[in-house]
Amino acid sequence: MISTLTFDVTRQGLLDISAELSTVVREAGLEEGLCTLFIQHTSASLLIQESYDPSARRDLESWLNRLVPENDPFYTHTLEGPDDMPAHIKAALTASSVSIPVIAGELALGAWQGVYLWEHRHKPGRRRVLVHLT
Amino acid sequence: MISTLTFDVTRQGLLDISAELSTVVREAGLEEGLCTLFIQHTSASLLIQESYDPSARRDLESWLNRLVPENDPFYTHTLEGPDDMPAHIKAALTASSVSIPVIAGELALGAWQGVYLWEHRHKPGRRRVLVHLT
Amino acid sequence: MISTLTFDVTRQGLLDISAELSTVVREAGLEEGLCTLFIQHTSASLLIQESYDPSARRDLESWLNRLVPENDPFYTHTLEGPDDMPAHIKAALTASSVSIPVIAGELALGAWQGVYLWEHRHKPGRRRVLVHLT
Repeated sequence: MISTLTFDVTRQGLLDISAELSTVVREAGLEEGLCTLFIQHTSASLLIQESYDPSARRDLESWLNRLVPENDPFYTHTLEGPDDMPAHIKAALTASSVSIPVIAGELALGAWQGVYLWEHRHKPGRRRVLVHLT
Repeated sequence: MISTLTFDVTRQGLLDISAELSTVVREAGLEEGLCTLFIQHTSASLLIQESYDPSARRDLESWLNRLVPENDPFYTHTLEGPDDMPAHIKAALTASSVSIPVIAGELALGAWQGVYLWEHRHKPGRRRVLVHLT
Repeated sequence: MISTLTFDVTRQGLLDISAELSTVVREAGLEEGLCTLFIQHTSASLLIQESYDPSARRDLESWLNRLVPENDPFYTHTLEGPDDMPAHIKAALTASSVSIPVIAGELALGAWQGVYLWEHRHKPGRRRVLVHLT
């Protein structure tokens, strides 16, 4: 009912996790229901986004980096590095959990949708996403 | 358990889908449970927002248009028109899925809450929202 | 299956509701499942965020106040006070619902995660959060 997906992330940006997620759904043998993702971190988040054209994802990453820049003199929470406070803000502006219906044994994503883990830190690390199926 | 709502959207902005959603809940005869919406698009999103005063929704739309303007020289993903990349960014900043409890056979919305489909493109089109009830 | 948590909020900002939420989960005796929160307001929202260092939460609050300032000449919806329209915008940029898996009878939050009610108005008031367990 609940699985844990682990991702070794190597850089800031969007990581497509659609395939790993589809595997969890198929192996569970769920025909119709709901798949809920939850990310156990506050400097990475979840996103449903355009999966076709990589330029859309690059623009999205750049846009958010411009909205929430590093080294803003405004920040007081700087002990963990210049990318830490922007990472928390970016996570707050995006999603910690997302729910996707399952139909005919597959995630019912739209034609152009993919599921992404959005890593907001630079340094490589391990990220955990819980997957609840019902 | 899963229904599909289809909306023919004619313009950019917030479309109240509360009535259609309430109908799905009532027809399902669900007394108590959870209603989860998922939008199958990446240039439209879902929003719970103030339903009473239309000026709040207009200001919200205008504010987001100012934060994410069209024709930003920054964008490289421009092939699908000047409103496409802003639409993806706006969708990323708002919700792809939202869950609302059902109590006594009705969506347990607050007194001033409505459920909206937020269309981020200008051109008319058909949008699909999946509704999962449990 | 559905509980209502009520909070008497006294000021704008993040209010940690993790303890109240954990109590609901424990009293329900749910061993494994999903906990979904829904806030019945459009000028307050829900957030999963860093629970360890209060400076991260202060920076987050200040950053959002700078992005969505009061008294923007742009607003037309001003009848309910200068903090009302910013509150609706902030709620739209954050979450109305969030789902957290339950494992071994506890909310499966990450090591540094807390659950917050984000009050966007200044004046004290009562806020209601519905908790659905399955």
